[in-house]
Amino acid sequence: MSYKNEKYYVGVDIGGTKILAILVNSKFEVIAREKKKTKVWVKGAQPEIRIVETIKSVLDSVDNLKIEGIGLGVPGPVDHKNGVVVTTPNIGLENFPLGDIISEEFSVPSAVDNDVNLGTFAEWVFSGYGDAKHVLGVFPGTGIGGGLIINRKILHGASGGAGEIGHFTVQLGGPLCGCGKRGCLEALASRIAIVKEVIALILRGECPYLAERIGTDASKLRSSIIAEAIENGEKKVEEIVRKSAYLTGVAIANAINLISPNLVILGGGLIEALGKIYLEEIQRAVKEHAMPFLRRKVEIVVGKLGDDAVAMGGALLISKKLEKE
Amino acid sequence: MSYKNEKYYVGVDIGGTKILAILVNSKFEVIAREKKKTKVWVKGAQPEIRIVETIKSVLDSVDNLKIEGIGLGVPGPVDHKNGVVVTTPNIGLENFPLGDIISEEFSVPSAVDNDVNLGTFAEWVFSGYGDAKHVLGVFPGTGIGGGLIINRKILHGASGGAGEIGHFTVQLGGPLCGCGKRGCLEALASRIAIVKEVIALILRGECPYLAERIGTDASKLRSSIIAEAIENGEKKVEEIVRKSAYLTGVAIANAINLISPNLVILGGGLIEALGKIYLEEIQRAVKEHAMPFLRRKVEIVVGKLGDDAVAMGGALLISKKLEKE
Repeated sequence: MSYKNEKYYVGVDIGGTKILAILVNSKFEVIAREKKKTKVWVKGAQPEIRIVETIKSVLDSVDNLKIEGIGLGVPGPVDHKNGVVVTTPNIGLENFPLGDIISEEFSVPSAVDNDVNLGTFAEWVFSGYGDAKHVLGVFPGTGIGGGLIINRKILHGASGGAGEIGHFTVQLGGPLCGCGKRGCLEALASRIAIVKEVIALILRGECPYLAERIGTDASKLRSSIIAEAIENGEKKVEEIVRKSAYLTGVAIANAINLISPNLVILGGGLIEALGKIYLEEIQRAVKEHAMPFLRRKVEIVVGKLGDDAVAMGGALLISKKLEKE
Repeated sequence: MSYKNEKYYVGVDIGGTKILAILVNSKFEVIAREKKKTKVWVKGAQPEIRIVETIKSVLDSVDNLKIEGIGLGVPGPVDHKNGVVVTTPNIGLENFPLGDIISEEFSVPSAVDNDVNLGTFAEWVFSGYGDAKHVLGVFPGTGIGGGLIINRKILHGASGGAGEIGHFTVQLGGPLCGCGKRGCLEALASRIAIVKEVIALILRGECPYLAERIGTDASKLRSSIIAEAIENGEKKVEEIVRKSAYLTGVAIANAINLISPNLVILGGGLIEALGKIYLEEIQRAVKEHAMPFLRRKVEIVVGKLGDDAVAMGGALLISKKLEKE
């Protein structure tokens, strides 16, 4: 299956619930894909074993063709120069030399970055807006992640963890966030924030469609089910989603006021299922909260890569790194 | 007065109420300084004439010694590559080739940038934190300006006007701002926002010290007078200032969450007069609203240049530009 002069890369998205590995060729066409549950990261567990297994699976599926390198996205700040994971609240890696471990295991170069940085990077490159110099990526889902490209380079900031737009305070003294602060965008507008409001609707009998469809089990309220309810005329569910999207737009407007990007790319689970509503409300919020001379310079678009964005960003990252060497 | 091998630069701060020009040597010691009122920029007026006059004055004061170049800061977004002022709501310059006009008039190279960018740049270079890679400058005054250094370079963004932290929405549906939006930081925490609250205190008879000192004339409520009132025990005035400083800190915390700077530098009129209170409240807000792993990487300091910051930044800008050529 390996052609002369063709090069292959592996990109890995390491999440709190799943690990996704993709194998791409030099045109970034996906040749193979493998997904495994992350499983519980209890103390003493070794997350890297599960990551290695997933990569092995994707390579096995194509008869172990020779790859050039592996790029990995992790849910937390990284020391990207040394491939070290600084911290990951969801999967328990801390000051962890992931890059070295993966390079040693597979005898190829590796690169590690934050997942949302990589998602932003890949969506930017494949968006058709590749000439944009400054890019903000926003990925609303269980959390709300952000990534920044400044002067065509991923911005890591002093901490390795720039881009935390989900923890913008949008309501002083607002609801408690998972991070311990109050009034964060995430506490008001993540999928969890939407789900908790929708469950209340169901319990109050104000949402017959969803009550019939999923009962009162919050874990069944996936983004696609929420979209389905709205398509079936559940106006109150739509209101909740619109409010979350609008607040996401307020945070984006503030980010536009600060960094004046050429491009804002939206990605992630909520956008994939509810892109039209999100785009409308975000554009409305940006019109109301960003300065006119900054707003006029920015395009706001929905990304194209869906669930592959982070893994694709990993593959891109390692290929660009090797190109430079 | 000109020594062999010594080089001189002029830096100019063009504001809505005054133009300040300074002449510095290559050690950035101020040799001469000239300030003129900007005067009303009515339609048909030519602001550049007043700018040229101010530069001529500062040169005249030292017997017209030979200068290498002139750097200018303007209150609005700029096309810094071409020295063109994009727009300045306060002084009426729009798509204005200021750099070319100044270069032609004085037969030396020039450079133009946004005033707060230049203030941030100068405070950074002279702060003692010159190794900081990513810097946020915040200048609370009549408005609240922001400037960004990313990867050791001023960030202009897509519009030429990045850094508008004063127009972060910090209170949804809050008071109307000069920009036409609602709930901007500036509407809640600028000197004008503070003054309007203090005047209400005076009118209600809750502020005897200030009532005796300035009566009810809002134009007399300069930052230094506000500081004096607080030193004299006016607790309610202190509360108002602390609230404004805290809200400024919330916006700074959001900016830290997004770009993860190494350094935040505070400058401008309110900071010069009330630096201790501002620093305390901003640090409190950052502790409450910035993510711990980002917050731990950032120093927050008060700048040292006071009113000279922007003009000094202009002199620095042109000297760096000439160094590169």
